[in-house]
Amino acid sequence: MNAIRNVLFIMVDQLRWDHLSCASHPFLRTPNIDALAARGVRFSQAYVQSGICGPSRMSYYTGRYVSSHGATHNRVPLSVGEVTLGWHLREAGRTLALAGKTHVLPDAHGMQRLQLDGQHDLAALLREGWFTLVDRHDGHHAEPDSAYAHWLRAQGYDSADPWTDYVIAVEDARGQVQSGWKMRNAHLPARVREEHSETAYTTDQALRFMAAQGEQPWVLHLSYVKPHWPYIAPAPYHALYRADQCLPVSRHPGERGDDAHPLLREWQNEEVCRSFQNDDCIATVRPAYQGLVAQLDHHLGRVWAAMEEQGRWRDTLVVFCADHGDYLGDHWLGEKELFHDCVQRVPFLVFDPSSAADATRGTHDARFVEAIDVVPTILDGLGLDAAEHLVEGRSLLGLTRGTATAWRDFVVSELDWTFRGARRRLGHPTGQHHAWMLRDARWKYIHWTSGYRPQLFDLQADPEEFFDLGAEPGLEAVRTEARAHLLGWFTRLKRRTTLSWAEAEFRTDRHKAAGVFYGEW
Amino acid sequence: MNAIRNVLFIMVDQLRWDHLSCASHPFLRTPNIDALAARGVRFSQAYVQSGICGPSRMSYYTGRYVSSHGATHNRVPLSVGEVTLGWHLREAGRTLALAGKTHVLPDAHGMQRLQLDGQHDLAALLREGWFTLVDRHDGHHAEPDSAYAHWLRAQGYDSADPWTDYVIAVEDARGQVQSGWKMRNAHLPARVREEHSETAYTTDQALRFMAAQGEQPWVLHLSYVKPHWPYIAPAPYHALYRADQCLPVSRHPGERGDDAHPLLREWQNEEVCRSFQNDDCIATVRPAYQGLVAQLDHHLGRVWAAMEEQGRWRDTLVVFCADHGDYLGDHWLGEKELFHDCVQRVPFLVFDPSSAADATRGTHDARFVEAIDVVPTILDGLGLDAAEHLVEGRSLLGLTRGTATAWRDFVVSELDWTFRGARRRLGHPTGQHHAWMLRDARWKYIHWTSGYRPQLFDLQADPEEFFDLGAEPGLEAVRTEARAHLLGWFTRLKRRTTLSWAEAEFRTDRHKAAGVFYGEW
Repeated sequence: MNAIRNVLFIMVDQLRWDHLSCASHPFLRTPNIDALAARGVRFSQAYVQSGICGPSRMSYYTGRYVSSHGATHNRVPLSVGEVTLGWHLREAGRTLALAGKTHVLPDAHGMQRLQLDGQHDLAALLREGWFTLVDRHDGHHAEPDSAYAHWLRAQGYDSADPWTDYVIAVEDARGQVQSGWKMRNAHLPARVREEHSETAYTTDQALRFMAAQGEQPWVLHLSYVKPHWPYIAPAPYHALYRADQCLPVSRHPGERGDDAHPLLREWQNEEVCRSFQNDDCIATVRPAYQGLVAQLDHHLGRVWAAMEEQGRWRDTLVVFCADHGDYLGDHWLGEKELFHDCVQRVPFLVFDPSSAADATRGTHDARFVEAIDVVPTILDGLGLDAAEHLVEGRSLLGLTRGTATAWRDFVVSELDWTFRGARRRLGHPTGQHHAWMLRDARWKYIHWTSGYRPQLFDLQADPEEFFDLGAEPGLEAVRTEARAHLLGWFTRLKRRTTLSWAEAEFRTDRHKAAGVFYGEW
Repeated sequence: MNAIRNVLFIMVDQLRWDHLSCASHPFLRTPNIDALAARGVRFSQAYVQSGICGPSRMSYYTGRYVSSHGATHNRVPLSVGEVTLGWHLREAGRTLALAGKTHVLPDAHGMQRLQLDGQHDLAALLREGWFTLVDRHDGHHAEPDSAYAHWLRAQGYDSADPWTDYVIAVEDARGQVQSGWKMRNAHLPARVREEHSETAYTTDQALRFMAAQGEQPWVLHLSYVKPHWPYIAPAPYHALYRADQCLPVSRHPGERGDDAHPLLREWQNEEVCRSFQNDDCIATVRPAYQGLVAQLDHHLGRVWAAMEEQGRWRDTLVVFCADHGDYLGDHWLGEKELFHDCVQRVPFLVFDPSSAADATRGTHDARFVEAIDVVPTILDGLGLDAAEHLVEGRSLLGLTRGTATAWRDFVVSELDWTFRGARRRLGHPTGQHHAWMLRDARWKYIHWTSGYRPQLFDLQADPEEFFDLGAEPGLEAVRTEARAHLLGWFTRLKRRTTLSWAEAEFRTDRHKAAGVFYGEW
């Protein structure tokens, strides 16, 4: 049995589960991702804990549901009191390296309260959520002082902000520079050369790190910002697919009708949704999005080759996943956050080098996987303490090795919609505005707060999630059962975070050993 | 209108709601507590968030439910990531002084992770949960090196451990020293003189602090360890009441019968419960317990006199409460933790010096109060930020001043029974074993995990809580409704702790101001 010494934890940003050839996309070709699926297991029912970058990633990095870690939205820092994968590894003398994006925000209030807001190694680690940086590049706004910006300038991109001016910029037919923020420009190639694009650069960083490590064990989070917006692909990927080689848009008139859920109806008025209600936008963006995926796949081929050359397929656990998907116009929506499968369900592959996993190679597994399973899978792979008092996911090595018995019956994802314009337009003051999705093999139940009725979809009868049964009188029993499951889920969250389970066992019924003799007659 | 400049936050430990003369105890006299009730408002339906010291106090000190702060049992530290009253005051340039008990445990793992485990002012504050010590005395096990121990030795109590040898020790008829841990000795006087007892000592500390402050504003937590066990009162209080001047024991044969809840039946086998199933134990302990309450009342009279002398009734908010009650043999149980009213319901008085509260003086208010209301009441009284993103309670000044409109319909308390011997005897491994109580005007619903059926009591028909309707087929609708309320409660917990509500409002729909222009066509 090969022992796992290294971990390659690959995340891509905003990649839908159905945009892989191994997941039966009819046109998009992803041969390198498919090759990883052939080496390992493809989990075809993998769900994130939130349909937006920040909270989803904090679940990936803590192994905890959003309700437990509290970083409920992109604009909400993870508390300095939370424990991340980087700390678990550090406790075991290991390091969690980062190449690419994390979306970690420093907990400024917490660090100030604990006088940890200075300039020192610990503060730097805390600001990065215990990642050690090979190179960080979040790639969703200008980074004029980042290493990537400096490197681009060294390559001849003469700009104070080469990301804005080259990486996400294009030139129109008249040679005028146009912004890639405007989705109408997504059919044009980036002004940056392919080998200088974000995907190429982040891959270079990872390869440099792996080569430098040599035979020293490593754990690397290789975290691509693409195919996340701005949807600008470098040549030749911008033109690899035509609009008729994309998935057809999935939407139904009833979803905008009078009976539609009031919050969803209002959500459809967000700018990005209005843009994607325009068929030209869909026909322009989807090909570019596919091109960005194809480019990603190409660079993963470089990673696989380096792994081969260095003998890393022998001793490296590989996880490939995404932080969430993308509406791309489905359901009259753009972007993400809400609970349809095109957002919540993600590509998820695991390569387990152990010979114990040989029987499952090249298979797909339809059991429910959640983002919170990554931390326990990595800890299990490296033989480290499972931190059961904190971690709410389960190791997937029981699935790759065929040793798991009972498995979960449903997945849970969450949304904090306080930060959306729709909240204001609906007249709700600031505060707490949340929702929870519970999806089992047949039903998807969505529990809204702030006075909204639930949503319910029958995924057997309605796999495209067009018909909201949340107000259907005949299905009250289904909704009641879903609420009972949701209540059970809340009761099982791990809130006793300051004591390990072994410590709890040790301290059970032990008052006399601690000098406390109450209760004696 | 008098402005509040000072806060006197008085807590007593393990005092039942029904052990006050102003709450109609037929024999026990508490004239000074009654005098506070006459000056302010007595809240007759006040509930704690947990029926055991540590978690209940952490709710009192954070304004948050146990499910939010995570310190689920006495043996579980409050996370260094949690924010306490002491920090809220400190942010406003104020200090939270302590005389007496807090039951705060340092979060050793968290402090080590954040490199805060050294010897410095911040570490000292963190170890005390942001209390600044006048004098800390937890009084539930030997404290040979405490200030109280040193002081006792200076008064002539010649012992390495005067608490064990004098404060909780007695002498039997033959002059032999016996331990107060043995409840059979509770009828005998403590070996310590009354003026050197814990209650007297802690009062002295508070009076010293108040005198030293003079006209400097202060916030003091005056936190008595009594009438908590060991149930040893100094003379003359040990003999103030006879057994026939105590409340009759409240228990029913059905509570130990075959239909009783299996967890409760096993709980009845804990040593303290077996002891209290002995009528001699009840008849011995209850009079001593009442004596300890009477002693407390006497010393509160000293505090009131000092307040009078210093003019503090003019500008001081006073809260009087307890961290939980005591079974004292009711329901075949001893000690606390479980969900009967004799444990969960506590004495709760508020004196609001403002003239706006004149109309409510001397009244009692039967609306539901929770322990988590103390922090917002104090912040409100001092005119400080309400920290709505953290604090789950409500200011009671809206009740003392008659300005509150809608109020809560139910209270919630919680239990982590992982640490009990009963858990092991029932064959459950370590991990998470919790329960939640939801009590409204009529029903008390208790939700158990680990496979146990719920409990349900009809408090109108059965105010003594003898008849558990948790399995009654005709009441499934009541239980379903209670579960819906419990689910709603879980959804409203405040988990987004790193950002204020004002910050959330500011960051709403503001991506463009942050340089992010997604969604534009």
